[in-house]
Amino acid sequence: MVDRLAIVGTGLIGASVGLAAKQAGIGSVSAWDSDADALAVAAERGAVDEIAASLAEALAQAELALVATPVATLEGQVRATLEASSESCTVTDVGSTKGRLCASLPNRARFVGGHPVCGSEARGPEHASGELFEGATWFLTPVAETDPARYRMLHGFVALLGAFPVAIDPQAHDRLLALTSHLPHALANLLLNQAGATRVNGHEALNAAGGSLKDMTRVAGANARVWVDIFLDNAEALRAMLTEHRRRVEELERALEEGDPGYLARWIGEAAVNRRRLLEQAYEDAGALQRLQVHIPDRPGVLSGITQALGAEQINIEDFELSHMTPERGGTLEVLVTGEQAARRAAELLEAQGYSVIVAPAFEE
Amino acid sequence: MVDRLAIVGTGLIGASVGLAAKQAGIGSVSAWDSDADALAVAAERGAVDEIAASLAEALAQAELALVATPVATLEGQVRATLEASSESCTVTDVGSTKGRLCASLPNRARFVGGHPVCGSEARGPEHASGELFEGATWFLTPVAETDPARYRMLHGFVALLGAFPVAIDPQAHDRLLALTSHLPHALANLLLNQAGATRVNGHEALNAAGGSLKDMTRVAGANARVWVDIFLDNAEALRAMLTEHRRRVEELERALEEGDPGYLARWIGEAAVNRRRLLEQAYEDAGALQRLQVHIPDRPGVLSGITQALGAEQINIEDFELSHMTPERGGTLEVLVTGEQAARRAAELLEAQGYSVIVAPAFEE
Repeated sequence: MVDRLAIVGTGLIGASVGLAAKQAGIGSVSAWDSDADALAVAAERGAVDEIAASLAEALAQAELALVATPVATLEGQVRATLEASSESCTVTDVGSTKGRLCASLPNRARFVGGHPVCGSEARGPEHASGELFEGATWFLTPVAETDPARYRMLHGFVALLGAFPVAIDPQAHDRLLALTSHLPHALANLLLNQAGATRVNGHEALNAAGGSLKDMTRVAGANARVWVDIFLDNAEALRAMLTEHRRRVEELERALEEGDPGYLARWIGEAAVNRRRLLEQAYEDAGALQRLQVHIPDRPGVLSGITQALGAEQINIEDFELSHMTPERGGTLEVLVTGEQAARRAAELLEAQGYSVIVAPAFEE
Repeated sequence: MVDRLAIVGTGLIGASVGLAAKQAGIGSVSAWDSDADALAVAAERGAVDEIAASLAEALAQAELALVATPVATLEGQVRATLEASSESCTVTDVGSTKGRLCASLPNRARFVGGHPVCGSEARGPEHASGELFEGATWFLTPVAETDPARYRMLHGFVALLGAFPVAIDPQAHDRLLALTSHLPHALANLLLNQAGATRVNGHEALNAAGGSLKDMTRVAGANARVWVDIFLDNAEALRAMLTEHRRRVEELERALEEGDPGYLARWIGEAAVNRRRLLEQAYEDAGALQRLQVHIPDRPGVLSGITQALGAEQINIEDFELSHMTPERGGTLEVLVTGEQAARRAAELLEAQGYSVIVAPAFEE
């Protein structure tokens, strides 16, 4: 178990690691950041025991050093941290790409790459939270030269913060993230910019956006300072995914041109199977999921009335989403529960409150 | 005001129109469906006053006939309805494409196309709801030959059901929907099938899906019977949107190949502006939106404790989303409120309940 942790870079992630480590009972946390304000805020929030005057001072006693600076400066900081730390100190990072960094370092026994997938768009130590990693996947990228004892220590540390460590090859990590994170982000931007640039007979496409366009562009336009670096750092893997995406788009265009219902039905059916596989990651019994849809007015107390009624009957809520509540139109509430019986009971409770409820399986068989 | 309504096709939409019309005080609703069971269920649910034995009988007294059969049979049913109804009867439909239908009909004075955008994936009269159209956009596609009095009547009827009528040219409607609905659906399927088909060094991409991939594929795999017809019926407009999408993908690939940070920053910045425009449709003061992020455990009463605390202080919740709650990992709750003061107060209330809260503006400036 790690007793003395050093954090290099006390932004949102660094400070959150500090808070989580303190909550988990780590002995002491020293920290350094070139931005003295960030360091002061992190200490004020209780993420840091000891504000160091230099990188070397922060690392002096550390068993584990975690580098959490932006992607663009990450490699330099990791190198500096390896140089300034003693042989007994293990070094890790939290950058969202891993291939180039892990390949370039001189000391690959002492460094193990890491990447917590926590999806917060917030920045800065003022938004840090000791629970940021609770339930999150935390990729670790050991290589052939990695010291197994150091890897085990890091694995235990990450689990201590509440995260789920997943070991993966650094290059594979980047290809995987290109597909599961960077491609979706890119498509969200592409779709939103196409919609934003298009007027149809005087109708702004954005004004006519339905739920699917809104859902699909939720991550669009996020944090240019972070994402430009991620896209560039993982450009090769992302380009390969985009090329494959274009090939699939062309195939669809051909099917539409030929008016091929069989192709379209197979293609949608394949997506239904994949959607189910995806949901099975998040839900124990995805096939039994039922969706309740209710239109509710924008009035205080409506939401608590509903959650109280469902909570009182111990109905197990999987998802609960109220979106786009407006004073004029109200909002749509979607609740996901497991099992037809729970769905029926939930619908009865909502109907007893005067709502009209639509219940259906969460996805087609 | 319409007093005698005929519904042709009593699936989810037809039966929901019946329920909403009855709730709004429409005098009588007659209905016909080639599926006697669907008709019986609709009547049982109170959506229909009079089960007709034939299309002609349903239409005998009607001032307004609403055709709500699947897209594939729609044109035939609309023609049959125009033929079987008297000159005084106005005919409309609820199909999700409009161009081909509106261009092909012989009697364009008496027919006005319609398309309620209500986004339910449920089917069948058993899921019908009188509030399905509450707050929804309902496109109407009058053409040059449309009788203005009939259009006004239909406009009033749709508003009576709680929907917001929006007039648009039929061809423009299809181009608009190709961009705002059919392209997002297609991209969701494309993205999910690419992820589903890809393993990276033994890691299933779907197992590593982050929030963006989940959000973006929420509509994937939906209802093949409905969507094959929609895609084929609007194939030309959708192909044009897909071609333009491919052009934009290629431009991005070029920027990645050239390692052009300026292009990427402008592209993300454009998406941020468009995201704000999109949110401004849904929220009164999108710029003031604040996002609270809380990790909560999977325990009964947690949700109602939170909504009660926020409700008691009259904090105006814009969005409220709990997603992917699991017994082991718990879930992430995101709450959108307007204004920094409301966000601060909400954070205090949640912190008082022992949660650790991350607060940040909902989108970057």
